[in-house]
Amino acid sequence: MKLKVKTNIDDYSIIIGKNLCSKIKKIISNEKINSQKFLLVYDSKVPKRMIRSIVSRFNKKRIDEKKIVFNEKSKNLKTVSSIVKILEKKNYSRNDCLISVGGGICGDVCGFASSIFKRGLNFINVPTTLLSQVDSSIGGKTGINSLSGKNMIGSFYQPSLVVSDIDFLKSLPKKEMICGYAEILKHSLIKNKAFFKFLEKNFSKILNHNKNFLENAIYKSCLIKKEVVEKDEKEKNIRKMLNLGHTFAHAYETTVGYNKGLNHGEAVLLGIMSAVKFGRQKNILNKDDYERIIKHLKKLNYINLNKYFKSKDISKIIFYMKQDKKNKGNKINLILLKSLAKPILNKSFEENEIRLFLKKLINK
Amino acid sequence: MKLKVKTNIDDYSIIIGKNLCSKIKKIISNEKINSQKFLLVYDSKVPKRMIRSIVSRFNKKRIDEKKIVFNEKSKNLKTVSSIVKILEKKNYSRNDCLISVGGGICGDVCGFASSIFKRGLNFINVPTTLLSQVDSSIGGKTGINSLSGKNMIGSFYQPSLVVSDIDFLKSLPKKEMICGYAEILKHSLIKNKAFFKFLEKNFSKILNHNKNFLENAIYKSCLIKKEVVEKDEKEKNIRKMLNLGHTFAHAYETTVGYNKGLNHGEAVLLGIMSAVKFGRQKNILNKDDYERIIKHLKKLNYINLNKYFKSKDISKIIFYMKQDKKNKGNKINLILLKSLAKPILNKSFEENEIRLFLKKLINK
Repeated sequence: MKLKVKTNIDDYSIIIGKNLCSKIKKIISNEKINSQKFLLVYDSKVPKRMIRSIVSRFNKKRIDEKKIVFNEKSKNLKTVSSIVKILEKKNYSRNDCLISVGGGICGDVCGFASSIFKRGLNFINVPTTLLSQVDSSIGGKTGINSLSGKNMIGSFYQPSLVVSDIDFLKSLPKKEMICGYAEILKHSLIKNKAFFKFLEKNFSKILNHNKNFLENAIYKSCLIKKEVVEKDEKEKNIRKMLNLGHTFAHAYETTVGYNKGLNHGEAVLLGIMSAVKFGRQKNILNKDDYERIIKHLKKLNYINLNKYFKSKDISKIIFYMKQDKKNKGNKINLILLKSLAKPILNKSFEENEIRLFLKKLINK
Repeated sequence: MKLKVKTNIDDYSIIIGKNLCSKIKKIISNEKINSQKFLLVYDSKVPKRMIRSIVSRFNKKRIDEKKIVFNEKSKNLKTVSSIVKILEKKNYSRNDCLISVGGGICGDVCGFASSIFKRGLNFINVPTTLLSQVDSSIGGKTGINSLSGKNMIGSFYQPSLVVSDIDFLKSLPKKEMICGYAEILKHSLIKNKAFFKFLEKNFSKILNHNKNFLENAIYKSCLIKKEVVEKDEKEKNIRKMLNLGHTFAHAYETTVGYNKGLNHGEAVLLGIMSAVKFGRQKNILNKDDYERIIKHLKKLNYINLNKYFKSKDISKIIFYMKQDKKNKGNKINLILLKSLAKPILNKSFEENEIRLFLKKLINK
């Protein structure tokens, strides 16, 4: 399956399917990417045989490799510099290409490195997790962490190509599948009622690697995200809807310290739950849709903040919410739902309203 | 005088004139930049009274200041990080604003910092040298140096506003005026024969700070650059013409080590001379125009490479030319002139052709 994403400068393709890695050289030339040299940066967690199946298709002189241990701690300027140094040393030109093979962090770091080397060389993203296939690989947001927060440093930079091979997902643990599912669910909630219905019915098939349902869900999710980012590449306005649940989610994951107890997608599920409940409390979201969404989140078992936080964490959560990139002035911006597929942007709230709300959810 | 530059995302204005600093707050609000907070980053060389005349117009709570010693050595990731740290610490939002007051290096570093903080906050450039007013402040190229070359790391990022106050130029030494003049001359050569004629006649008035001629030359130079970058924001094609003389120039200045013996504009004059002579040798540039341009360069006294280089430097020059961002594969790309106002892009040459050519120019 193929999607074409329009950007301000150029178009690029997203290819979704099985057994794509072994065909990658062909795909690249079909897409008219005429690079002479390729630097393949890959996450140490990616199975070696998948890397081999890519590298073996290239002339040895034309491809360099760099393995990196990617995690929230290494998602920093130091890792970016280590990639840029290779590009410099081997005299890569703008017309050459960096290929990222890994999850969202790998793609974010490689995308950022690509954007700043000689003001931008070709970038091919091969996302290997469900989360990165349905979300971060589309839309050109790149980013690294700074001392004070997630993705505080970054750029908007469009890839030349995205190759989403679902064979990577075979080895993905349940927790990681749920992580990607969170963003699939979010896409349905902001844009497509029928897709939400499909998910209500088929979510367990998707989570259990039923290939057809999985491929379908990835495609639909990419399609929604593509349509949003095409209308607003630099997140001036409607793209903000993709942040449903994310103001809470970023604060949740930063508060627990990006540890394994709560991954990004899990934080997003809790964030969606929070945004949905807050929207209902403010009488913005209608009762029926509220109950349908909460029912689905209950089935996924991401409904209870008390599992992760204590009352004393609330100030910390608020502190991080105030650093959200969407905020203007001193208020906290939240993306809320009016109903299924009808998001509301640009609603801002006083920190005290949110503090009181969180006190009800976190009562330990 | 005011120019409006169209970009892929937004438009921005370039304001050129006298006594603009004291009116800057008014200019900012006229341009509908609604930031709450401003970080003013300025070069230590800018006269204190000019900084005061800007800062004093703002509410003290709304403006932060950071003085930096800018030079090619401090044009690096460390300086960028020091700026980003302040933005983070004081919780600047994307909607807030960084104001750069300084020459090209200050603008390049501040522009890059602006582009990567939260994927981009508002950026106002107040260029204080002739070079930055006529060239680097327009077009959205930002950049810092790496170990191996000038501007190897950077981004394309458009400012929200450029304010070119010619009062800054009063204190500029002759050498710095010539530096800016090099780019003015380049703009005339690639795009406007009548403007070149104007420069042939009036160059000494411009270099000697005749305000009307100076303002006129800045405006015309900005207009040419604006027209080029509007057609090709990301330097995919015709924007490359702005690099006339620059493949040589970058290699020259890197070879002498960015020292004060040869500043950027001086290197550009020598680079233009080299490109013009090389183009003539290859029978690309016609004889009449060749002689007119060389005659003008002789008046400026930038014609003799032997003043700066010895034969043993040639390999180093070639090495740096091969790292130019425009190169594809192993050849060296040069922008050449066919005639006045008729540049040729995408001509590439073997390093040996250029080596032989340089051997004729550098014969000590």
